[in-house]
Amino acid sequence: MIYLDHAATTKTDEKVLSAMMPYLTDVFGNASAQYEAGRRAAGAVSAARDEIASLLGVGSEEIYFTSGGTEADNWALRGIYSATRGHIVLSAIEHPALLSCAEDLVKEGADVTLVSPDADGRVSADAVRKAMRDDTAFVGVMAANNETGVVQPVSEIAAMCGERGVFFFSDCVQAVGVLPVNRGTADGFSFSAHKIYGPKGVGVLRIKKGVRINRFVAGGRQERNQRGGTTNVAGIVGCAKALEIAEKNREKNNAEIAALRDAFVEGLLAKIPGTHLNGDRKGRLPSNANIRFDGVSGEQILMLLDARGVAVSTGSACAAGAVEPSHVLMAMGLSETEAKSSVRFSFGRENTREDVEKVLSYLTEIVSSLRAGR
Amino acid sequence: MIYLDHAATTKTDEKVLSAMMPYLTDVFGNASAQYEAGRRAAGAVSAARDEIASLLGVGSEEIYFTSGGTEADNWALRGIYSATRGHIVLSAIEHPALLSCAEDLVKEGADVTLVSPDADGRVSADAVRKAMRDDTAFVGVMAANNETGVVQPVSEIAAMCGERGVFFFSDCVQAVGVLPVNRGTADGFSFSAHKIYGPKGVGVLRIKKGVRINRFVAGGRQERNQRGGTTNVAGIVGCAKALEIAEKNREKNNAEIAALRDAFVEGLLAKIPGTHLNGDRKGRLPSNANIRFDGVSGEQILMLLDARGVAVSTGSACAAGAVEPSHVLMAMGLSETEAKSSVRFSFGRENTREDVEKVLSYLTEIVSSLRAGR
Repeated sequence: MIYLDHAATTKTDEKVLSAMMPYLTDVFGNASAQYEAGRRAAGAVSAARDEIASLLGVGSEEIYFTSGGTEADNWALRGIYSATRGHIVLSAIEHPALLSCAEDLVKEGADVTLVSPDADGRVSADAVRKAMRDDTAFVGVMAANNETGVVQPVSEIAAMCGERGVFFFSDCVQAVGVLPVNRGTADGFSFSAHKIYGPKGVGVLRIKKGVRINRFVAGGRQERNQRGGTTNVAGIVGCAKALEIAEKNREKNNAEIAALRDAFVEGLLAKIPGTHLNGDRKGRLPSNANIRFDGVSGEQILMLLDARGVAVSTGSACAAGAVEPSHVLMAMGLSETEAKSSVRFSFGRENTREDVEKVLSYLTEIVSSLRAGR
Repeated sequence: MIYLDHAATTKTDEKVLSAMMPYLTDVFGNASAQYEAGRRAAGAVSAARDEIASLLGVGSEEIYFTSGGTEADNWALRGIYSATRGHIVLSAIEHPALLSCAEDLVKEGADVTLVSPDADGRVSADAVRKAMRDDTAFVGVMAANNETGVVQPVSEIAAMCGERGVFFFSDCVQAVGVLPVNRGTADGFSFSAHKIYGPKGVGVLRIKKGVRINRFVAGGRQERNQRGGTTNVAGIVGCAKALEIAEKNREKNNAEIAALRDAFVEGLLAKIPGTHLNGDRKGRLPSNANIRFDGVSGEQILMLLDARGVAVSTGSACAAGAVEPSHVLMAMGLSETEAKSSVRFSFGRENTREDVEKVLSYLTEIVSSLRAGR
């Protein structure tokens, strides 16, 4: 398999799995228990929390473990809304983890304003400013978009929110381990271990100290009484290890992955006529190439690449199987047909130059046969 | 270590971990993705869902995967409440996963009635009936209590709720894999893999088909659009395997574990004066012995047993570290001093007759030294 869907999930790094194994086997104690086996588990969780906090430049007491990015996003939005009942501003290109949650909140009486990006896929601080009101309590703009990889001006938006005393949240699921952003810039941010070669089922919410936010999953006294549920020790240890590895090799990985992605995009645009890069060429994640193929269905390209052992996506995996076109591409002004002619290729650590060459060759063949068959 | 805290968590069975390993390594695809690697992951999740549904006698479309029992309990309670705004009836001995969530709902305007158990730790159907009102929308009574192991009359309560068309929920975290209860009896029930020798971080909510309930974690279209978040494939596969093993060996395990527990209780009550079994002697989980030691602190017993390599609990691990006495024992009418003199011993598959003898001997020594030292 040539895997080009790293924005959807990644294979757990062997070093991460090794770090997790003791907690999947012998060190199985409940981290809330007061005896030795519990203390060993709690110690591992505490070390993981400190490591993550240190790598991200925030306080350990600001790190809360969740079941993933989606729960973290839900917690941030619902938690601030239920504590304030204030107006909500979200970019129109947020992940469904925020947009679906906002839809549910609207049914419960919340007032939500969506901010459109420009044609390059970027949400300007000015557009966010215009959407804000005196009663705005939550502003959410992701660090980098999951479909286009376009990096958002979060520092500028964070500064603006900071001046007004408004809680600024940034979904960093695609950005953590890749961009040096949001190290304490956003009052709240989230990420998920499985996007950075860690396990599925664990994520992090950072909440700045002193922020008034309600809890989301209520239960036992875990996570300083803010998130109930038996602590997922192995997952948390794996999350910290994955972040450590990502941060350690960040510059090198970014350079290598960007080189592959650039070779892919250049080759593709040169070899196959009627192809376009969706979203700004500069200022995007090193891994992402979101390509529009004139007159061809992205879904068909996906299936024909799959038949050749290549894994790509037509949008967020979280919306896969959906008949609707990408809400991100539509928000950027693409037509429904254009959005449905788009494919997301997201590169990762294990990809090679040979992968790029093979996929370019497959695509040339697939696109010309699809166009001929019309 | 002699581990006697199986009600808090269990060591993952090697067969469970083996079943999970492919999904922690090579089969890492996102289960929502449309290519081969995604379909393999989705196939494993689908098989796990079918297996769990079949073992529990419910429909596959009624099984929803969550991050654990706590999330499942929160979802059930919040989901029904936000869909109905009706009155809530809970037993006073529910797990904090329901009680803490109910506390939060009360702050949001919900009306909650708690039903006390009798001195044996059992909540009668009659007491539940008396608490119900015309606007009651949710009744929650666990299948077996996590602190005392006392089995609750859920069939009777379910029948009563059924007659009135009220949603009946039963937290089965302690009961699944042990009791043959609630196979479709309760409209909603929950359980957690890590209590049945499966991994931490995964649980199940069963919602009867046709019930009007709102989602809790909103996001992508996972779990038929009812629970967002990248599917925890390895965890789900492990959950199904753990349940399969538990169900397969249920009678045998129960008999063996009950024999150890009974030998322990008989030996203890005979050897150490001033000791009492909290909760009904009959009609409790085979694993549980909740013992009260007159004039001795349960916390001190826990610490002195820990020093000898024995793991026990003074209550729910979810409340460990809490200074308050057990809400379960207090609801049964014990005084604060009596509640704080109690220790929960919960036996499991790997315990032996030798463990029982050793712990009895340690306890004899510990209790007499503590009493002498007063």
